[in-house]
Amino acid sequence: MKTRAAVAFAAQKPLEIVELDLDGPREGEVLVEVKATGICHTDAYTLSGQDSEGIFPSVLGHEGAGIIVDVGPGVTSVKKGDHVIPLYTPECRECEYCLSRKTNLCQKIRVTQGKGLMPDGTPRFHYNRQPIYHYMGTSTFSNFIVVPEIAVAKIREDAPFDKVCYIGCGVTTGVGAVIWTARAEPGCRAVVFGLGGIGLNVIQALRMIGAEQIVGVDVNDSKKPMAEKFGMTHFVNPKKIGTDIVPYLVDLTKGGADYTFDCTGNVNVMRQALECCHKGWGQSIIIGVAPAGAEIQTRPFQLVTGRVWKGSAFGGARGRTDVPRIVDWYMEGKINIDDLITHKLPLEQINEGFDLMHEGKSIRSVVEF
Amino acid sequence: MKTRAAVAFAAQKPLEIVELDLDGPREGEVLVEVKATGICHTDAYTLSGQDSEGIFPSVLGHEGAGIIVDVGPGVTSVKKGDHVIPLYTPECRECEYCLSRKTNLCQKIRVTQGKGLMPDGTPRFHYNRQPIYHYMGTSTFSNFIVVPEIAVAKIREDAPFDKVCYIGCGVTTGVGAVIWTARAEPGCRAVVFGLGGIGLNVIQALRMIGAEQIVGVDVNDSKKPMAEKFGMTHFVNPKKIGTDIVPYLVDLTKGGADYTFDCTGNVNVMRQALECCHKGWGQSIIIGVAPAGAEIQTRPFQLVTGRVWKGSAFGGARGRTDVPRIVDWYMEGKINIDDLITHKLPLEQINEGFDLMHEGKSIRSVVEF
Repeated sequence: MKTRAAVAFAAQKPLEIVELDLDGPREGEVLVEVKATGICHTDAYTLSGQDSEGIFPSVLGHEGAGIIVDVGPGVTSVKKGDHVIPLYTPECRECEYCLSRKTNLCQKIRVTQGKGLMPDGTPRFHYNRQPIYHYMGTSTFSNFIVVPEIAVAKIREDAPFDKVCYIGCGVTTGVGAVIWTARAEPGCRAVVFGLGGIGLNVIQALRMIGAEQIVGVDVNDSKKPMAEKFGMTHFVNPKKIGTDIVPYLVDLTKGGADYTFDCTGNVNVMRQALECCHKGWGQSIIIGVAPAGAEIQTRPFQLVTGRVWKGSAFGGARGRTDVPRIVDWYMEGKINIDDLITHKLPLEQINEGFDLMHEGKSIRSVVEF
Repeated sequence: MKTRAAVAFAAQKPLEIVELDLDGPREGEVLVEVKATGICHTDAYTLSGQDSEGIFPSVLGHEGAGIIVDVGPGVTSVKKGDHVIPLYTPECRECEYCLSRKTNLCQKIRVTQGKGLMPDGTPRFHYNRQPIYHYMGTSTFSNFIVVPEIAVAKIREDAPFDKVCYIGCGVTTGVGAVIWTARAEPGCRAVVFGLGGIGLNVIQALRMIGAEQIVGVDVNDSKKPMAEKFGMTHFVNPKKIGTDIVPYLVDLTKGGADYTFDCTGNVNVMRQALECCHKGWGQSIIIGVAPAGAEIQTRPFQLVTGRVWKGSAFGGARGRTDVPRIVDWYMEGKINIDDLITHKLPLEQINEGFDLMHEGKSIRSVVEF
């Protein structure tokens, strides 16, 4: 069949909207009609050429929602007509990782996914008979995609695609870091570094679970009103406090935060996030992606006196199990996504969505097919 | 009253055995006849003058066992005749830390303890009418000591003082790191860096809880037989493997260790210990004390992909609650202490005990009064 897609033919070039050939789903695979997809910083990072694992030509996009329109042989967990969110972190429920009960990082199809291929080692996209590679196992910048059955989360049918597509990455990354990585509890005090889309989702999850204090830290005052709307109780602009931010935050949180979240990707901020944690039990969660080669650093005494340093990928969420729960929370009004979708574009204007992101003018742009 | 004690009159000088004046126990305090005390690296560290918080003149020693011979007003939890282990990490069961259920680092008397004083702000020791300061709230290099009621663990009366005194620090630090900090589970794979006394205690706790694989790492081959006796299943000498130790250990543990323990205090080893953890869930526990100013370092990707970096102080053990349990484990034969007490000395030869330690000839020297 044919599918309309935005193709990244090479790094640092605008995406090109073309018609691709798409093979149908093979054993264990499903064909999904993508209805909407977000544009994420990770797509931009790969397109910039800085991602050493980036593969071209490929169809980027990993934050989608759509409907299953066909299934391959042996597919049992979903069927034609099901509404789904494609998962770049699948959940096979049978690998060592899934069965560990300690991680969401299913490894079942990791090797082929990293090569831009389906699990059988081949791509489904072609253009002029040349292979076009998959991206993060999802490639949601295509109107139709083929993905493994274990890489879709079935969701309720009344959820709007143009909103819940954001749960495919950003919402889950932020909300999940609070719920599944930190397992933050009611009454806790938290500090969130970086008030972009991820930070806002961290904040609203903290509000949802009943945090006592939610401190937001950003060098840009303009982030304050939206963060307050999402639940931030205190705002700190490090450029304006006129003192070292670590003791300032320890004081503000009455001895240190129970949980801190880095949503900046800046390794110096990651250190601050650890060191403003409460002695004895404070946990710092790294969500942001650091530049290649950058390293975090601290004195081991920080850990010996009880602080814990950890990270979060896809919010610690198991894709098929937890993503539908977040969709429910959105539909129940516990999570606000509507205010985070600042722009909607047709596929033809997808490059404008990247521009808006680079210029800091959008929280999330969504492409609707 | 009078007490015979080894006094550190100044840094870098041998201890001097003298008779001190000792005031009796005040409100909430108890008088303990110390029957035996271990000599620990931390005593030597303070005596060396490197410990910026060291106070002189003082009575060092923090790894003792003895009998309560008098109690001050208001003491309710212990009585004359009780056998006890003095606690440098007390357990008041009413401060924010004790009530958090997340840490063992009771803060009730931390400030005065750090100043070498009892909670009322005065010392109990005097020599020629000049104050002699307490050390770590315990000062077990004195035959009699006064300590707060919240800083003694009541233990069974059939436990030999010359063995269980080691539970006052080293045993609990190693065993507890496995049981309470890591909460390691049966079937786990672990790597222990540094096969001194702490490392051996980590190893025997791993055996006790049913670890599947216990890898010991040390640059000194002579440590191997004792470590094997304590439960080590694989020995690695980094100097002899002829390759980078991190991938070597990842391979040996079939994908990385579930738990790793640094018992070296070397920040480069701490990094190796983190990075040989299993992706998705491996936890690295820092036990060793690093040189002043030294920092740990890694790429945040190590944490984002699921490894956790934490530390352990006094094995995460709550003094009054957990120390008696370790004494029981020793008496039940689950923990071997006898083989770790390599030397016994009278108080007059305490400086020889420090020499044995510096020369690497002892695991633990115990002074009997």
